[in-house]
This record gives sequence, C-alpha cells and structure tokens, in this order.
Amino acid sequence: MSEPSEPRSSETGDWLRSSIGHATPDSITVRGRDLASEVMGRMSFTDLAFLLAAGRTPSEAEATMFNAVLVSLADHGLTPTALAARLTYTGAPEAMQGAIAAGLLGGGSVFLGPAEDAARFLHDVLAAVPDDRRSDDSALEAVAADAVEKVLAAGNRIPGLGHPVHRETDPRTPRFYELAREVGLLGPNLRLLRFVAAAQQKATGRALPINGAGAAGAVLADLGFPPTLARGFALLARTAGLVGHLAEEAEHPIGMRLYKEVNARALENVEPETP
Amino acid sequence: MSEPSEPRSSETGDWLRSSIGHATPDSITVRGRDLASEVMGRMSFTDLAFLLAAGRTPSEAEATMFNAVLVSLADHGLTPTALAARLTYTGAPEAMQGAIAAGLLGGGSVFLGPAEDAARFLHDVLAAVPDDRRSDDSALEAVAADAVEKVLAAGNRIPGLGHPVHRETDPRTPRFYELAREVGLLGPNLRLLRFVAAAQQKATGRALPINGAGAAGAVLADLGFPPTLARGFALLARTAGLVGHLAEEAEHPIGMRLYKEVNARALENVEPETP
Amino acid sequence: MSEPSEPRSSETGDWLRSSIGHATPDSITVRGRDLASEVMGRMSFTDLAFLLAAGRTPSEAEATMFNAVLVSLADHGLTPTALAARLTYTGAPEAMQGAIAAGLLGGGSVFLGPAEDAARFLHDVLAAVPDDRRSDDSALEAVAADAVEKVLAAGNRIPGLGHPVHRETDPRTPRFYELAREVGLLGPNLRLLRFVAAAQQKATGRALPINGAGAAGAVLADLGFPPTLARGFALLARTAGLVGHLAEEAEHPIGMRLYKEVNARALENVEPETP
Amino acid sequence: MSEPSEPRSSETGDWLRSSIGHATPDSITVRGRDLASEVMGRMSFTDLAFLLAAGRTPSEAEATMFNAVLVSLADHGLTPTALAARLTYTGAPEAMQGAIAAGLLGGGSVFLGPAEDAARFLHDVLAAVPDDRRSDDSALEAVAADAVEKVLAAGNRIPGLGHPVHRETDPRTPRFYELAREVGLLGPNLRLLRFVAAAQQKATGRALPINGAGAAGAVLADLGFPPTLARGFALLARTAGLVGHLAEEAEHPIGMRLYKEVNARALENVEPETP
Repeated sequence: MSEPSEPRSSETGDWLRSSIGHATPDSITVRGRDLASEVMGRMSFTDLAFLLAAGRTPSEAEATMFNAVLVSLADHGLTPTALAARLTYTGAPEAMQGAIAAGLLGGGSVFLGPAEDAARFLHDVLAAVPDDRRSDDSALEAVAADAVEKVLAAGNRIPGLGHPVHRETDPRTPRFYELAREVGLLGPNLRLLRFVAAAQQKATGRALPINGAGAAGAVLADLGFPPTLARGFALLARTAGLVGHLAEEAEHPIGMRLYKEVNARALENVEPETP
Repeated sequence: MSEPSEPRSSETGDWLRSSIGHATPDSITVRGRDLASEVMGRMSFTDLAFLLAAGRTPSEAEATMFNAVLVSLADHGLTPTALAARLTYTGAPEAMQGAIAAGLLGGGSVFLGPAEDAARFLHDVLAAVPDDRRSDDSALEAVAADAVEKVLAAGNRIPGLGHPVHRETDPRTPRFYELAREVGLLGPNLRLLRFVAAAQQKATGRALPINGAGAAGAVLADLGFPPTLARGFALLARTAGLVGHLAEEAEHPIGMRLYKEVNARALENVEPETP
Repeated sequence: MSEPSEPRSSETGDWLRSSIGHATPDSITVRGRDLASEVMGRMSFTDLAFLLAAGRTPSEAEATMFNAVLVSLADHGLTPTALAARLTYTGAPEAMQGAIAAGLLGGGSVFLGPAEDAARFLHDVLAAVPDDRRSDDSALEAVAADAVEKVLAAGNRIPGLGHPVHRETDPRTPRFYELAREVGLLGPNLRLLRFVAAAQQKATGRALPINGAGAAGAVLADLGFPPTLARGFALLARTAGLVGHLAEEAEHPIGMRLYKEVNARALENVEPETP
Repeated sequence: MSEPSEPRSSETGDWLRSSIGHATPDSITVRGRDLASEVMGRMSFTDLAFLLAAGRTPSEAEATMFNAVLVSLADHGLTPTALAARLTYTGAPEAMQGAIAAGLLGGGSVFLGPAEDAARFLHDVLAAVPDDRRSDDSALEAVAADAVEKVLAAGNRIPGLGHPVHRETDPRTPRFYELAREVGLLGPNLRLLRFVAAAQQKATGRALPINGAGAAGAVLADLGFPPTLARGFALLARTAGLVGHLAEEAEHPIGMRLYKEVNARALENVEPETP
C-alpha cells in the first residue's frame, strides 16, 4: 500500500483486475461477452464453464470431449464425498452450501486428485518431446518407457493406472478413446497414456487398466488445460452429483439412520474402563 | 457388513439405498443409465445435472431454460464468494477443493439464497391455485395481490424484486421471459412473478425490477424443481465461475496483494493504546 | 471508492479497521496486548478465546463457567460431524483443514444450533424484564409462563428442552447449575431457563429435561455474550473434538471401511431396471 | 445394524470403534472420563483438547507450553483467513459455521502449514539420533548440519526459518525458549531447531530468524505429538481468532465495503473490448 503522503497513482490499483466477469447497472459481462444477449439462450453451461476457465469457447469436437469428462466424474454413488455431504445436511439442512462444500472437501489426493496427478505426470513427460515430434508414436513410446522406469525405480505407482474396483477395465477408458477418435481429438496426452500403460505392463509383467480419472486428465490436457484445472473440473462435475444426492437426501434421508447405526455399533465396541 | 452366508433381513439394511448411482467392477451406473455407453458422448453435462436431481432428462425446451438459468448465475465478477475463494487459494494453493468450498460457503441468504427465496415464495403462493386454474391469469393476479399485501403488512421485502446494482432493470430478467416464450415454457411461476411485481408497484407506488435470481428461481420452479434445489443449482453454476477465478488467480494472483493492502491500511487505523 | 481524481483522504480507508489483532515487524498484538510478553505464558488459550470475542478477560469464576461450556460441547463420539470429518480425511488426508471444515459444516440447526437457539430465546424473553428486576424470581417466572404459552400455541418446541438420547436428564445440566452456584454466577438466563422448563411441564403435563446445549447457551448469555456467539463457541469446542477424531483416524482409520460397507450394502439394494 | 438376537461376530462390526467419546442415555464419556463429574469444572478446555488428541492429560509444565502454542497461533489480524471468513459471513450471516470453515480452509501450506512442516522436518532429522543421545548437543549439532546441507543442496528452504514480516526476530520465538527453560521442557526438537538455524547461517552467511510457527511446531513435537497434529492444533487456535473476527464483523462489518471497493476498482481496470 502506498504511504499516506504519496497520492495513489493509477498504478497502485492496477493489479486489482479480473477478466472473468463484471457487472454495471445495465449489464453483466462474462469473459467479455454480454450475459443476457450473447450467453443466455446461446451458450450451454458446459461451454460457459470452458470459456470461463480457458478464455475461449470450445469447438464442437472439444465440447463433446469436455462434456464426456464432466459426466464421467459427476457421480459414483455413495462415495465418501456423497456421505460427508449427506451427513452434513443432516446437521444443517438449512445451509445446503455447507453440505456441498463438505462433499467437495473430500476431493483430494485419494478420490478426485488422480485426474490432476495423471495430467501433471503426462505434462511433465511430454515436456521432453518437442511440439513437432508429438505426432510421432515412437517418440511418445520412448519417453513413456523412460518415465515408467524412473517412477517404478523410485518405488512409486504410475499415475493414471489401476483402480480398486475396476480391476480389469475401467469402463470409461475405452469410451474416452473411442470418442476422441470419432471427433478427431486423440491428442498426444491420450496417446502417451497408452504407451505408459504398455510400458508399465512390460516392466512389471502385470497389466493395469488405464483408469477413468487418468483418461479424463489426459483428455483435459489434450484440450489445453493446465494440470491444476483437472482437479477444478473434477470438482465442478462432482458438484452436480452432490446436488443430486442432496435432492435425494431431502426426500429419503439416510444420514440420521447411518449415524444412529454407527453410533450404536461403536457403543457395543466400547471397552470397559479398567478400574 | 454381514457375511455373505447370512441372509440380510429387509429390516437391517433396507434403508441404505440410493438411486443416484453405483459402481460394480464392470460398470458405472448413474440414475439407471450405463455411464460409458448411455451417458458419455450422448448426454451433455447439463442434461446429466438435470437428470441426477430430477430423475428424468429434460426436453430440448427445458434444457434451453435450464442452461439459461445456470449461465445466468455462474459469475458476477469479484464478488465476496470469488474473493473468499481467491484468498483461500492464497493460503492453500495445493488444495483447490478448499478454495472452491470457501467460495461456495458465501452462497447463503444474501447472494445465492434469493433464487431459493423467490422459488419458495412463488411455490407457497401458487399452492392456493388449483392446477387446472394456473393457466388463468386472473387467478394468478388475485393471489399475487393478496400475497404482496401480506408480505408488505409484515414489513418484509418481496422475494425476487429489487437489486442493489441493477436498479432499473436486471438485464437477465427480460431475457428469461423472452426465452421462455420462444420455447413455450412461460409457466405459472414466471407469470405469477410478473403479477407480483405489478402488485408491489401498485401497493407502494414504486416500481422494483424483477431480479435475475428471482426469475431464475421461477424458471426452476416451472421446470418442476422444489425450492431447495434452486440454491443447489445456483451453487453448481457458481462452481464454474469459481473454477474460472481460480484459473485466473493461479496465473495472475491478486489474493496476496489484496491481503497486504488491507493489512497495511488497517495497521494505519489501529488506535494507540491508552496508557 | 474514491474517484481517480480525488486524493484518497484518511476518511476513505477509515472503515478498514479491526481491534482483534495486528502485526508489525517487531511485535504481534491481540486485543491490545503484546502477544509475546503479555499473552504467551500468562494467559490460557481459553481466556484468550474469551478476550478475542468479548474484548475483556474473564474473571476466575467466569473462566470456570466458560471452560465448562467448552468442554461440554467438545465431543459426543461418532456424531454426523465426526463422521463427515473422518470421511473427508479419507479422501484428502493431505489437507486436514478440509476435514475439520467439513466437520464444522454440520454444526447447523440440528446439532450445534440449539445452544444459540436457547440463548436467543432466553435473550428475547428476558428483554421484557428490566435489569433491576432480573434478580426477582417471580418476574422471571411470569415471563417464562407467557413465553412458553406463546411458543406452544404456535405449535413450536421450546428451545433448550428435550434431548433425543438423554430423555430423563441430560447429565451436563445439573452440573452447570451446580458449578454456577459454586462460583456465584447463577445468572438470570440460567434461572429463567429453569422457570421455562417448569412452565412447559405445567402447560403440557409432561416434563422435558433442560438439555446441555440449552444450559450452555444460558451460561454464555449470563457471561454477556450475544446469542450468535453461542454457535461460535460451540464450533470452537467442536474443533477440539474433531482434532481428536482425526488424530485417531490417522492411526486407526474407519472412513474407508465405512464407505466400503455402505457402498456394498447399497449395491445389494439397487433395484433391477425395469426393461 | 444387526438385530439384538443375532450375535455380532467380531469380524463384522469390530472395526467400528472410537476411543474419543460416546454417549448413553445417562452419561457422556470423553476419552474414558465422565464428562459431567470428571471434566466439567475440573479440567480446562485446553487440557481437554490435549487429552482428546493425546489420550492423556498434560502435566502443569506441558499445559503451560501447550497454551503458549495455541495463543501464539490464534490470530494475526486481517489475514487472508480472517478476510475469507468475514466475506463469507457477508454472504451467509445465518450460517456462522460456513464462515469459520471458510476461514480454516486457507490454513494450508502457506500460512498454517509451516508449523507442521517444521515439526515434520525436525522429526525426520531427529529420527537419526537414538533416544539416549538426544540430550547430547553435539549429536544434535551434527545432524542439523547434515540436514541443512542436504536441504540447501536441493535448492529448498529450511522449514521453521525466516518470516516475511518479522525479518530480524519473530517475537514469539525467544518467548517459547524462555518458557520452555522456565518449566523444564526445553526438549530435543526445540534444541535441534536452534542448531538448524545456526547451521543455516554458517552455510549461507545470512542469519534467518526461527519463526514462531517453527518454534510452535518444535514445542508440539517435544510434547510428543506427531507432525500432522501441528496443523490440527494450529487450526484449533485459529478458530478462536475467527470467532473473534466474526463477533467484530457482526458489530462493525467490513466485508460488504471491502467487496464494493474491490469491485469498483476492478471495474475501472476492465479493458475495453476490441471490436
């Protein structure tokens, strides 16, 4: 902040700006477009979400892939995030924002993070391949083998591979590849991920499926998004699932009964105090 | 969980169910549809959000209105929610879920609640009009006048009317009515809201614009959603805006500078301790 | 905001102030006290929490009651808030702030709100009794009877009475009254609450115990805190419980197993799709 | 939950247990103690927080240090976390739990994480020193020099050293050492941290102060807490500060004015659309 004696020059406040949106008494603007006349009725919510984050609208092919990513991450049933949201709603039904926030807060390293982890891993591996060689499968195959070797040597798991439930095939993965081929967006990240899976199998003798989160991360990377946004979009997708869960919880609540059962069972397991 | 050999009586686990989604080793299902083959590449994210909450897919006309609602609520610039999200990101950039959650938590009675308040008000007023009389404008006009009188007599404000910035016209409102007419979904809630605004003007002598949140709430009510979901969808919409703000914050941060300026200005205002 | 041409006068930034605390390169100050020399080693954390909210330090008697309130609300086992925190930790163990936040978000109208509700109810009822008559039991008895009659006539429950588990006596309540007598702080709110319980029993013929949250709210009101802070302190107390739960969850996790059991049981209950 | 007549095999429900607390119709128990008779009026809230996390009560000396840690982390004025909490309260004043949660969510790697980072670093360095050699200063000095060399060689900063505001001395640090000496708890973590600072100065030629968060982390480690709990207790401490900020915000709001100023300034900085 400027000293009291210094007049506030226009430079001091210059940093306080945003290209996301603004409102005046007569208009609301998002990413430079008039909300009422250029967005409402003309642009889907998914396209606007893409525009807000990327600063450009998606092509039709890109919108197909982006929608596929979002629907693939929207909901997987009574996950820890859905349960946390429902239990929070049990205690504070008047504040739905709290229940949704609680649900999103479980979107960390274990459940929603893998999309970001895979995107970041692919991003780092691809960085070694010049742009004009990324269409060359042999270049991708080579960096994939190197990267897998390093990760395994360090005793770590390969991001994007393996799933605790879908042990053979994650049903979302082949669908992502099929769609990407259909719309002509089978980009270097998706292609690299397949070489990564092959290199992993070759190195360990055991095949692990490409998981849906990993494939989704690769699609987002091929759409040009930085790795951190993979988690952002996973959270957007999950919000739709959480709204669905809370709509159901309001009609057919399970939170209170779950609490009562857990509490009663834990009470049976309380060890008597040693005197 | 009981052993497989024990038959589970319907009393024990019966209540623990959800129609939102579930996963098996081979498949993921959302609202009874196979995610990979029936949703990915075939249904937009917005349609899925509608399906998850309503249990049915929207018609094309309904999807137009639903998308218009979501884009209308997605972002309004550097609002308190966007600022809270950015300041949270400043402190915990490694946990984007926390920044988005913090942003959503300001979606309460002041900023995102009005869509729900309007939907609830219209819902309660409409309850007095039998279904087969809701196409009758004079019936809507009569209940609107009664309801406005009661709210004003109690010294309260009419939900859905007035806006601190858009004092003459909220640019979103005429667009909602235009779109609803175009697609043939100008339902009883939207129509009632106009009679409410007219009754308010007649009773007070002062015109207040129908605000965008109120119109959005009316659209959602006309789509058949219960009032609580108006807040849920406002939160979903806002999540897209928050992802955009955090994408920008990661590139061009303002949170730390905002904190430093606030802190320095507050320091100047600290009163000296009286000895 | 000032126009660019106007120099920023000290008046414009004047509103940006706080008495809670501030830091300079040499010192940190909280509520006007030097943190290093006047607070650390000299004041307990509980006393500081009182000071931060009230702007004054508690007497010894007040500290006894304030500590009793906080310990009474800190933990009640595997409640929905503890479960939400643990399930959030399951998904994002690297971000403990998210797990604690998720736990607090269930502190709404159902579980932690009752302390605030009781404090507000007592506050409103006491407002009808002039300060110099609050030591008069008959004045309290009269307003209690009136207030109970009104609440019951409106078909509502009396804040501070009844408990789903402690149906006869909430063990915390007699202890609060005993402590308050011992330290000489049996104030008008605690005394009024007893008349409220008696009036309720007389009016309905059925005794309901004063619940611990209600008694805690009355103690906080007698300490001079406004009703909203009753929820604030309940949340502070609960944070200590949540840290305990997460310390245990890190050592002996139950979140993942709970999820797996719930998921498996819900899967058994999925209804086959009708073709 | 299984019917009472079915014996519950240890396999089914055995894992669902907690030592933190439980309630029956007649009693509430925390960490094996009766809440009403053994905790209320007999144990301070700080001691209970220690007990809940550690499973044992602190000695008087330990309580002195534990209180000093908590008060040192409770508040530092209008930080990003305080601002996020206040801006959230602006939008949802009816849900104080959301405002506190939003404030805590900024307690990540930048602002509250350093206490945990320092505790973890010291823990890892100390692991190389057998228990019976930890009283030997020369052993600590040797591992400190090694560890500092490794961290600096990797181009990283030393956890616990340096502060953006307190560039010469963090006023909390000498006070922690003074108190620890006074009560006889100058343990290996606090002593090691001083050797770390000295080694850093020797290696770089530039002295960096031990920051208060680092010293707090060392105190908690000397009290026997695992590193993750350093963040947990920092969050507990901060909750007290946030309750204070929200009590002030309710009386003298700054959130709405801050938003309006930011919004107006950002509006001036909107670049005109290029046609």
